[in-house]
Amino acid sequence: MRCRRCRQPAVLEVRRHNAAFCPDCFVHHCREQVGRAIHDFDMMSPGERVLVAVSGGKDSLGLWDLLLDLGYQADGLYLGLGIGEPGGYSDQSASYTRAFADHRGATLITVDLPTDYGFDIPDGSAAAKRVPCSACGLSKRHLFNRAALDGAYDVVVTGHNLDDEAAVLLGNVLRWHTEYLGRQLPLLPAADGFVRKAKPLVRLGEREMAAYCVIRGIDYIVEECPMAAGNRHLGYKEALNDIEEQSPGSKQAFYFGFLDRAVAHFRPEAVEDQAGLRPCPTCGSPTTSETCAFCSLVRRATSEPVAVGAPRRRRR
Amino acid sequence: MRCRRCRQPAVLEVRRHNAAFCPDCFVHHCREQVGRAIHDFDMMSPGERVLVAVSGGKDSLGLWDLLLDLGYQADGLYLGLGIGEPGGYSDQSASYTRAFADHRGATLITVDLPTDYGFDIPDGSAAAKRVPCSACGLSKRHLFNRAALDGAYDVVVTGHNLDDEAAVLLGNVLRWHTEYLGRQLPLLPAADGFVRKAKPLVRLGEREMAAYCVIRGIDYIVEECPMAAGNRHLGYKEALNDIEEQSPGSKQAFYFGFLDRAVAHFRPEAVEDQAGLRPCPTCGSPTTSETCAFCSLVRRATSEPVAVGAPRRRRR
Repeated sequence: MRCRRCRQPAVLEVRRHNAAFCPDCFVHHCREQVGRAIHDFDMMSPGERVLVAVSGGKDSLGLWDLLLDLGYQADGLYLGLGIGEPGGYSDQSASYTRAFADHRGATLITVDLPTDYGFDIPDGSAAAKRVPCSACGLSKRHLFNRAALDGAYDVVVTGHNLDDEAAVLLGNVLRWHTEYLGRQLPLLPAADGFVRKAKPLVRLGEREMAAYCVIRGIDYIVEECPMAAGNRHLGYKEALNDIEEQSPGSKQAFYFGFLDRAVAHFRPEAVEDQAGLRPCPTCGSPTTSETCAFCSLVRRATSEPVAVGAPRRRRR
Repeated sequence: MRCRRCRQPAVLEVRRHNAAFCPDCFVHHCREQVGRAIHDFDMMSPGERVLVAVSGGKDSLGLWDLLLDLGYQADGLYLGLGIGEPGGYSDQSASYTRAFADHRGATLITVDLPTDYGFDIPDGSAAAKRVPCSACGLSKRHLFNRAALDGAYDVVVTGHNLDDEAAVLLGNVLRWHTEYLGRQLPLLPAADGFVRKAKPLVRLGEREMAAYCVIRGIDYIVEECPMAAGNRHLGYKEALNDIEEQSPGSKQAFYFGFLDRAVAHFRPEAVEDQAGLRPCPTCGSPTTSETCAFCSLVRRATSEPVAVGAPRRRRR
């Protein structure tokens, strides 16, 4: 196998593109794909302030690295979830993130759920009677948005890759959650109370991101979150992997075909679902309920009223 | 485990309904599900003439049996595809079908591709450079429709079960074939040149149909069609089986959720795709092309012009 770009011996094959690359050209390929996603979906412009939601995993650290190399002014935001014993999952994730930021001389903002909000995901989700992935997801969405507004960032970017988006899409399609389908977009423009959100890795798969990090010498937490074991999302990924194995390119055709030919059909449901947004009386975030989901979670997780005002935040 | 209906010991579990049945009540359950599909989608009325497309497999023979027991005036149509050696797949399928018709004293119409049209699926698909499943599918659709019109039947019914429909839906969704999505319905009303088509087994799964035939003593061809090995459809079934195993009810939620909340969005594409239908100059069937797909296949498979007029047909 020869590299598609330089014809040197290739070390990496990307079957859905029917292409192979040497290490250097693979890094070029990843930058190109991210650049193309940013351009095609008009995600951000040079000079804008970008906040990267980083978890310490291959996708978010790889994304941060790619954006810095593409010349974007990208700071990181790490959210401490309090998962695992001291020295366990969350602590390790934080260490990988901090090491990357130090190495690149990049700015890292940290929000720590236990310190700043008085609960961690395992206890909080149990107290609020929510599955951990649900409590975690809503906390992340809320706190990333909050931090971006507070820090006057133009856009929050997350490390969702093609495998993630295809699996979420499969889950939404299997249940025909039409309101979620209508907003499953790689770019959500800013709206009242919501900062712009973008997913610049939608053109890159999970394996490509792992390979990118290895080539670039980025250490990341390899372990999956211990609380995610057995969740449906992982089952959808496996199902799609089997289909991709049979027919390379299936995931990309599924996700991009959806964007090209289907998502517009579900926009009305998504818009209707978000009608009647109003500020949460506790934190001011837009919500369709009495209190926003995050403040409800905090209240139930801590069994005491939520203090109004911005949480304490630590800068590197 | 006790039977949901009569509380006798159950022999069969239907996990997606969280129910178990004794043999008699299971047969009752199957009739009820078929009756409900017929009613909910207004598929046919008592007294109408029904043509059942039978292959000799569990689904079509089970369906024919169910419709006869529900009091419908249901004749069978068997299409000889010429697959396998003499005494092989097609011949065995024909024997099972004939045995069933004899046993029930039902009317069976037979159309034989090699005898009546001068080609079989293996040679014909090769000559026409089509995958066998494609050549077979289009031949079936054409000839079932033709026979129903010629015999003045009110409706053609096929044995597509929930697993089939969910797998087809997954395939259509993975590629976002929006024009196919818009017409993936359990009932297609009659239109100019097209007889009404219905799928009364959409509420029953593959395993249920196999169990139904075993309980009812219906012998059927167990072997899968040898030409279908490795086709995508089977991969989609496996993927859905894995998801169903994790979360029983997924297939039903996927298919019926589609009918409830999504198919209407894709109707315009389906209608547009069928715009400009006109009679095939050779056989008169509606087509959007110069010649209909079946006549093109016949022409290429036999390398000679197709004779106009109804094919020879044999009645039991």
